[in-house]
Amino acid sequence: MLEKVSLLQKFEMIQKYWEPRIAGEINDTWVKLAKFKDEFVWHHHDDEDEMFLVVKGHLRIELRDGIVELDPGEFVIVPRGVEHRPVAGEEVHCILIEPKSVLNTGNVRNQRTLDTLERI
Amino acid sequence: MLEKVSLLQKFEMIQKYWEPRIAGEINDTWVKLAKFKDEFVWHHHDDEDEMFLVVKGHLRIELRDGIVELDPGEFVIVPRGVEHRPVAGEEVHCILIEPKSVLNTGNVRNQRTLDTLERI
Repeated sequence: MLEKVSLLQKFEMIQKYWEPRIAGEINDTWVKLAKFKDEFVWHHHDDEDEMFLVVKGHLRIELRDGIVELDPGEFVIVPRGVEHRPVAGEEVHCILIEPKSVLNTGNVRNQRTLDTLERI
Repeated sequence: MLEKVSLLQKFEMIQKYWEPRIAGEINDTWVKLAKFKDEFVWHHHDDEDEMFLVVKGHLRIELRDGIVELDPGEFVIVPRGVEHRPVAGEEVHCILIEPKSVLNTGNVRNQRTLDTLERI
């Protein structure tokens, strides 16, 4: 039988900020759940579009030409090649949907780069 | 500048049940919004996994070996090849995420088949 996923239950299990966990797959696409707080690194993804759907909190996505402000029930898709930096003043719960080939820090490698993601 | 999408605003614009509208694209994947009421047709998708994330209402997804019941904040991914029938007793607002190649009625063609979907 198929298992449904409760976002609330899964987010309760996530301890670390900026470490997305894999909650499902749709062909070549991952469904990831992530908690954010404070600011991430500026980066872009050469080949992948990236969807941010906010479930809890307020997420600011800084772009080189502006800012997108997301409340729960709002999403944005950052197209490939577009530099962005997610910033969360308070804790944010976010669904990320993006191709499996995505690296979390995109074109940048630093202490926040994750080469593998755990399932949840 | 990138445009964010408010699920609430977009769902208000959808008039017809069982006619998903395209709200975004992530590489080869569509993000669709759909309103459901009553029952759909039994079908499967040969090559595509299909994510149902419920935003409003209660969605029952009937499978040949059971039923998945989804409330808001819950999702299921129906893998390719798995026969299913969505059923909504009351109006349901649902995010569908699936490859662009998906036909809404899968292996079945009937009066509900949509060969093209409009954007929203």
